Amino acid sequence: MRRVVVAGIGQTVFGKFLHRTVRSLAEEALSSALADSGIEAEQIGVTYFANALSGLVTGQETIRGQVALRNTGVMGRPIINVDNACASGSTAFHLAWLAVASGQADVALAIGAEKLTHEDKSVTFGAFASGVDVEERARLQMDAPQGHSVFMDIYAERARRYMASSGATPEDFALVCIKSRQAASTNEWAQFRAPVTAEEVLGSRMISTPLTLNMCSPIADGAAAAILVSEAFAQRLAKPRVYVKASAIVSANQDGLGTTAAERAANAAYEAAGLGPEDIHVAEVHDASAPAEIMLYERLGFAAPGEGVALLRDGVTSVGGRLPVNPGGGLLSRGHPVGATGIAQLIELTTHLRGTAGARQREGARAALAECSGGQLGADSALAAATILTNF
Amino acid sequence: MRRVVVAGIGQTVFGKFLHRTVRSLAEEALSSALADSGIEAEQIGVTYFANALSGLVTGQETIRGQVALRNTGVMGRPIINVDNACASGSTAFHLAWLAVASGQADVALAIGAEKLTHEDKSVTFGAFASGVDVEERARLQMDAPQGHSVFMDIYAERARRYMASSGATPEDFALVCIKSRQAASTNEWAQFRAPVTAEEVLGSRMISTPLTLNMCSPIADGAAAAILVSEAFAQRLAKPRVYVKASAIVSANQDGLGTTAAERAANAAYEAAGLGPEDIHVAEVHDASAPAEIMLYERLGFAAPGEGVALLRDGVTSVGGRLPVNPGGGLLSRGHPVGATGIAQLIELTTHLRGTAGARQREGARAALAECSGGQLGADSALAAATILTNF
Repeated sequence: MRRVVVAGIGQTVFGKFLHRTVRSLAEEALSSALADSGIEAEQIGVTYFANALSGLVTGQETIRGQVALRNTGVMGRPIINVDNACASGSTAFHLAWLAVASGQADVALAIGAEKLTHEDKSVTFGAFASGVDVEERARLQMDAPQGHSVFMDIYAERARRYMASSGATPEDFALVCIKSRQAASTNEWAQFRAPVTAEEVLGSRMISTPLTLNMCSPIADGAAAAILVSEAFAQRLAKPRVYVKASAIVSANQDGLGTTAAERAANAAYEAAGLGPEDIHVAEVHDASAPAEIMLYERLGFAAPGEGVALLRDGVTSVGGRLPVNPGGGLLSRGHPVGATGIAQLIELTTHLRGTAGARQREGARAALAECSGGQLGADSALAAATILTNF
Repeated sequence: MRRVVVAGIGQTVFGKFLHRTVRSLAEEALSSALADSGIEAEQIGVTYFANALSGLVTGQETIRGQVALRNTGVMGRPIINVDNACASGSTAFHLAWLAVASGQADVALAIGAEKLTHEDKSVTFGAFASGVDVEERARLQMDAPQGHSVFMDIYAERARRYMASSGATPEDFALVCIKSRQAASTNEWAQFRAPVTAEEVLGSRMISTPLTLNMCSPIADGAAAAILVSEAFAQRLAKPRVYVKASAIVSANQDGLGTTAAERAANAAYEAAGLGPEDIHVAEVHDASAPAEIMLYERLGFAAPGEGVALLRDGVTSVGGRLPVNPGGGLLSRGHPVGATGIAQLIELTTHLRGTAGARQREGARAALAECSGGQLGADSALAAATILTNF
């Protein structure tokens, strides 16, 4: 397998753009990634297009990438549509990495685009409900009549169990939100950049106890793209070299028990990279709700079980800390256009490894980890993806 | 890149199974492929799951494979959901081939499953309408009020142009149907196995001139699976060796003009395999409508432009002919559970290369070609896939 370089990155601002299309978002992210790389669209050998929920919002399914990119120079060559729920973008990135690593292509594009806003909010929430086993959903009467995604009830239940076992409090979850907004304040692509206070977070509308509105990742539209190339191809490019050191995807266990998907994905990536959690300088994790970020500190090996909260309270994971987590604002503040999220995480990490992350730069960053979970099966995520980038 | 062996194949009967689920169909196909190969589910390193339209029929999207396979031994390891319209199964096969060829996995599963029947037929036809550019569909007022898939209007328009340029007649299209049913008569997995006459085909309900009902591929549910392994892994298996010699996917051209996707995909596969159309002994092609089969003879290089009809009339492409095309019955008679079709084509070809195709065996078959098109953009398919299998 060949070494693979992240040669170009680009994204749209994430936010609510009722009148923009998947195509318009995808075209903007692609143009931006091409400009960043100095590569022409015609040089892209294969495209992996990630989209999870727009089919149910817009009616466009099955040839989503070909439709979104039909006016661009990637046409003619293979376009493969992938969908792995919230980890769809990570999956596209994984396959693009594999295409280059295996020698199938010298230049591969991973692009995720999502259109979630709809005049009727129930259409959007209904789309999210396709990310669980729909038969199980019906059997367990999980459909949320309150006008929010069924996932927030799932996350709330996890949060309650974590509070009971760890001593974490709603104030800790508010701290995740405050930290997230601080990070996003310098991210021009983020949906929410204004600071929040603990009072505002705890006082915002209760969605599913203990999760208040501010603790839940928002509905967003947006797109993100990454161009991966072989090391030989990268010789002709000017950007600082960032490598895909490892990429792993796992699914839930058959019985839904045992080690979580997130933990197994991270362990597989650490092993493939020959690195451990102690080697990671900056991370982006799947904070679809605020408590999830703290739980992930433990699952990814950044903290021992039960000690994630201490890491947060001590500021270790804030911008300026030893191990900034979600320096781009995470799903909570950057926003969560589902199919784009996994790639947006890797874009943020790439800027740190290039040394171009500006005010939120993790100084001396050498290795970075992205983790993204997807969907829900029984007690675990349906899948998880972990990617390690390095600049050595 | 390593050589890749088709180690196991299995499918369900294709047909209308209103009360079966995607999971039940997928589990049956997987069990059958495992039994055929002598491989255990736990040995499968990565799974590519193809489904195109069931999301709009059943509401289950985004983690389709994880939900369908949650009770099987493939769980825990990566499951990647792919969607490329009618070529979804071919795409899953392509990615499984790449995973093994690149050394990422020694054993990879390509599985396609589709649930299309619904008590309300308009739900099924509505799902098919997601396979074109939905904005273009609205602009061109392509939505079919007559109760059939929008694709049949597209195919009918192509057929009329082909009739004008080649002299093909509706009687020729009927001949494709007769040949298809004759082939399917010995295929225990086929949806339609009873013979038809020209009178019956031409006298069946007119769907979109010149296409009568019998000239259109039917609505079907079903699943198909193929297990691919490295040559080293295949040493321990008992089955005759069938190799994936080449696999190519292309998308429509940016301007929708120039050489068709089917032709470019086939040419790319021929070049990668070091073979030409004259080397192919048996083929499966995307006969979503009867005229398409004849046009594909020309696009795949089996006949010169305008001479496809002669090939058909002379019986060259019938079972027993020099180059049987769609010996398994094709989409017209085997049925067309969209995500499963591309893999079912490759299952049929594998049996010929193993020498186990029984009454419809192409004697002495050494090389076989499968072609599958997907979706529609402007005047061409949105994409096409071509795969060449050999037993040498």
